[in-house]
Parts: sequence; C-alpha cells; structure tokens
Amino acid sequence: MQNFASPPQRDVALREVGLRDGLQIHPTFMPTQAKLAWIRAEAAAGMPEIEVTSYVPPKLIPQFADAEEVSRLALRVPGLTVAALIPNARGAQRGIELGVHKLNFVMSVSRTHNLKNVRREREDSVADFRAIRALCDALPPERRPVLGGGLSTALGCSYEGRIPAADVVRYAAQLAEAGADEIVVADTVGYSGPAQVREVFRLVMAEVAPLPVAAHFHDTRGLGIANALAALDCGVRAFDASLAGMGGCPFAPGATGNIVMDDLCFLMASMGLRTGVDLERLLAVRDIVRAALPDIDMYGGVARAGLPRLDTGVLR
Amino acid sequence: MQNFASPPQRDVALREVGLRDGLQIHPTFMPTQAKLAWIRAEAAAGMPEIEVTSYVPPKLIPQFADAEEVSRLALRVPGLTVAALIPNARGAQRGIELGVHKLNFVMSVSRTHNLKNVRREREDSVADFRAIRALCDALPPERRPVLGGGLSTALGCSYEGRIPAADVVRYAAQLAEAGADEIVVADTVGYSGPAQVREVFRLVMAEVAPLPVAAHFHDTRGLGIANALAALDCGVRAFDASLAGMGGCPFAPGATGNIVMDDLCFLMASMGLRTGVDLERLLAVRDIVRAALPDIDMYGGVARAGLPRLDTGVLR
Repeated sequence: MQNFASPPQRDVALREVGLRDGLQIHPTFMPTQAKLAWIRAEAAAGMPEIEVTSYVPPKLIPQFADAEEVSRLALRVPGLTVAALIPNARGAQRGIELGVHKLNFVMSVSRTHNLKNVRREREDSVADFRAIRALCDALPPERRPVLGGGLSTALGCSYEGRIPAADVVRYAAQLAEAGADEIVVADTVGYSGPAQVREVFRLVMAEVAPLPVAAHFHDTRGLGIANALAALDCGVRAFDASLAGMGGCPFAPGATGNIVMDDLCFLMASMGLRTGVDLERLLAVRDIVRAALPDIDMYGGVARAGLPRLDTGVLR
Repeated sequence: MQNFASPPQRDVALREVGLRDGLQIHPTFMPTQAKLAWIRAEAAAGMPEIEVTSYVPPKLIPQFADAEEVSRLALRVPGLTVAALIPNARGAQRGIELGVHKLNFVMSVSRTHNLKNVRREREDSVADFRAIRALCDALPPERRPVLGGGLSTALGCSYEGRIPAADVVRYAAQLAEAGADEIVVADTVGYSGPAQVREVFRLVMAEVAPLPVAAHFHDTRGLGIANALAALDCGVRAFDASLAGMGGCPFAPGATGNIVMDDLCFLMASMGLRTGVDLERLLAVRDIVRAALPDIDMYGGVARAGLPRLDTGVLR
C-alpha cells in the first residue's frame, strides 16, 4: 500500500511554463489572483513544477510586475516546486530573497539573440551564471535553490538562422562546468524538426552526462509534439510546456506558443509513462484561465476532441 | 543533369486525401470546378497522388455526387496518380469504368464499425476484396488499377475502444493474401499514440513484407504528426494527409481531421526526406480552397507562422 504522504511515482517530469512563456507577450495583464488560481488548480491536478514568473524589470515586461507577489503566493501551494526565470544575477538575487525553489537561468546560443535579449556577449552570460552559482552556494543548503542552465535559440534563431550543434554543446558544457543542476535545451522560435532534436540532444546529453537535460519546445510550425517524442526517444525525461499551448512568437505574428501541456500529457499517458498529472483535472484548468483572460488564444487536440474511451488501452 | 521528363526523386510518398476524407463530413458541397482547381494546383506543387473522391451512393454522402466528373477531370492532370476510395465491389466497378489509377478499398478492423459503416461482417469485406481483386485481374494490365487494402479503426474505435494488434495483423494478412498492392493502416478516430503506432506497424510490416504499408493518421488529439514520426521510424514511406488538416471526426464534434499535409511536408523536409512537393506552392493551394469553401476549418503551424529562414539548415 502506498504511503499517504509519498509523492506519486513519475517517469517524466512535466513543467508548466505558461505563466511565464505563455503570458510574456500577451498584452493583457493577468490579475495576480487569477495567476494564483491557475497555479493552485494545476498543482492540484498533479503538476509538479511551475515556472510562475520572470524576474525582469517590470518596465520591460509589465506582465511580470507582480513577480514578487506571485512568487510568495505560489510558495504557499503545498508540494509544488516553484520556479522562476532569471536573465541575470539581479534576477537571481530577487529569487533568492523570495525563496523560490528553482531559478531558471537563460542565455541564448545565438550571439545576436543573446545581445538583443540580455544585451551581453554569450561569454558574459556564462560569467553571470558563475556569479549566480556562487550566490546560491553561499546560502545554507536548505535555502539553496536548484539552478537550471537554459540555452534558448539552441535549435534555430530568427536572426541567425541555423545554430551549429557544436555551439549548443559548447555552452551546455560551460554551464555544466559552472555548476548547473540541469541543462535546458530550447527551440525558442519553433524552427526544429525531430532529426535535429535527436542530433543536438544526443550530443548535449553525452557532453554533460550524468547531468539531466530537459527539453523546451514551441509548436510554432506544428512539429512540437513530434519533437518531444524525438527527445523522449533520446532519453529526455523533463519537458516544459504551457497549458493550452498559450503564448506566441514575437518573430511570427499569429504563431502558436509552447507545446500544448494537455496534449503532451496525453502523449506521455499514451506511451505508458507516468507524469503524476491527472489529465481531466488539467483540462479543467483551461476554464479558469479562459475566465480570467477571455482574449488569449488556446490550442490543444485533447481539449477539442475529448479523451478517447477509457477502455481503449491508449491510456495505459 | 536530370532528364527533363524524369520524375522527381522521392524518399517518401505523400498522398492528399482532403478531397475525400477532408470533405466527407463537410456540410457545404464544394463545386466540382473548385475541386478540380484544388487538384490541379496541388498536383502542380508536386503532390504525386490524390484521393479525389469516394464511390459511394450520392444519397449517403452528397459531397461525392460529382464523383464521376471529378474523376474524369482529375485524370486529365498530367503526372498525377488519381485514387478513389471504394467501400465495396460496386464502387470498384465505377472506378474501373472511369479508369482511375488506384482504388483504395477500406474495411474496419473494428467489427462494430465495419457493421455500421459498410453493413457487413469483416469476413464479408475480405470476400468483397477478393472479388474486387478478381475484377482488376480480369482487366488488361494497362487498364488495371493499383488496389490498396485499407484497415480503418486499426488503432482504436469509438464504439469498441481498444483494437487488439492481433486483429490488425490478421486482417492485414488476409488483404495481403487476397492480393492487395499495399496495406494502409488508419487511425480513423485519432485515438493512437506513438507507442501503439510502433507496435502495430512493426507487427503488420513484418507480417505482410515485402508489401508496402502506408499510414493514415488523424490529428484529433494532437498526436498526429508525432504518430507520423513514429511510423517513419518503423520504415513507413507512404503517408496520407489532408491540406490544412481539413476534415473532422463524426464521433468528436469540433475535432480536427487528418494530419495537416503542409506540416507533414515540413516534417519530411526537416528530416532531409524528399517528397517532391514544393512546400511554398502547397501552402498557396490553401487560398484556392479557402476561396471556394470559406466556412471550412483550416489548421497548420507552418501556414500560421511561415517557413523558417532559408539558411536555418532545418530544411535540408
């Protein structure tokens, strides 16, 4: 018999990034209480980790003006790993003061994108990461956040086009060497296909092993879930996604955002992989978000069509 | 230098089924000339094979009331393989009289679905197929159509739920033994995931080898392109899809239809697999269909977001 307090067994870790990546370019501010309702409901559906905000200056992204309050409220949700995106040491300092569980540092493999996004050379971003690692290491272990090393535009860039796999491997190795607790490889603009995913993830995983490598895909051109399958085949066991695929791409007006969490969850269930997430309860979270943000685009096959019959064997 | 008249080299055969599967449950009749414009434009974009209609009684599906005329007009399009769906020997007779290049026979692996769809036992459908094979074999070779053996509901059924892989293998073997030129395994209601796809396709391919096995997926629950990847990994090299993912599912109101041809074409290009289809010209065909059928739902990531930059290396 399972112990009452034991966490559910998981084969794959899903991580909700809709509150950050999904809302980032959405023009309407989502009220803090609505964000909290979303977080609470999705955590209650079994989502183990949610990236709840981004510690960037509110002037840059007004959607995250409530970053502190959202973080504090999310930390009260039982059992949830609260993560936040940080672009630099200033962001890390905010996260540390708030006591969030995980800091997701991000830099771009594309030099041009890194210059435009965080206004520094990639080497300076790696140096920032070292400083953030030192900040974390100076904390007592019980207050030390997990520190993720994210590589955006790793599979293509709207400015530079193709990104050499060797560059991804190089910066993955540098972040690993600098003390990342995991590496996140991101197809920020949704350029990639499964062949490239397999090539790049295999190289990165071989380089940084035994450090875990997570995947962050966008469904911009319809291949997001296939790319997730390709990463899964490589042994990736942690995936970012956003509920209802919310979000977009600043470089492709009208484009969709992250891969659809609900469909990703269905993919995992169809493969017999345990996520700990209750798909029906997850689908119900869409209504909470819809009520708060009636103007946001939502996607997802499972939500449109409903789940298959329970005796299909598809959901093992 | 390539010979002027030689067909383009292809690694994967894409087959447009939107005019049949996409239009089948659409309530508005698409005028014959619009169907022809669609066929012409997509053939000109390099689509090698189009299922242009279904030889069923017009009373059953009014959309195919012009089946004869569409077939005759499509046969005038240079280089195009003109296919049509047939549910029985009467349909085959119509196709043979018209002289279409390929007859796609279809029966359901689900007994209940076969009874509801073609009003006969599966064994009787196999017997029909034998009779159709005999009809074809009685023709002189130059008039003999290619005869496909399609297995619908092979990966799940809205009535029966799970379909045992052994049943798919059994009916695939029976159609192969009865003289099918290819076997088509179809996820008619979009229930499947990649694990099941791999299991079933591997079993079927091993059973009927060296007969080619084609895949027919619906994107009902968001996994269609991932399922295509899974089939591709098994060695499948022929895929049905519909432009803009047109179509739906009679069992799931609001659900999407076949996998999106444009995104499937992008998938293949991203993997360095040649289809002979010009993706930009294919995308332009959407406008022709949109003009004729303003009320039909269209899907597709590439159409929404546009192609990646040409120097990404994604399109090899």
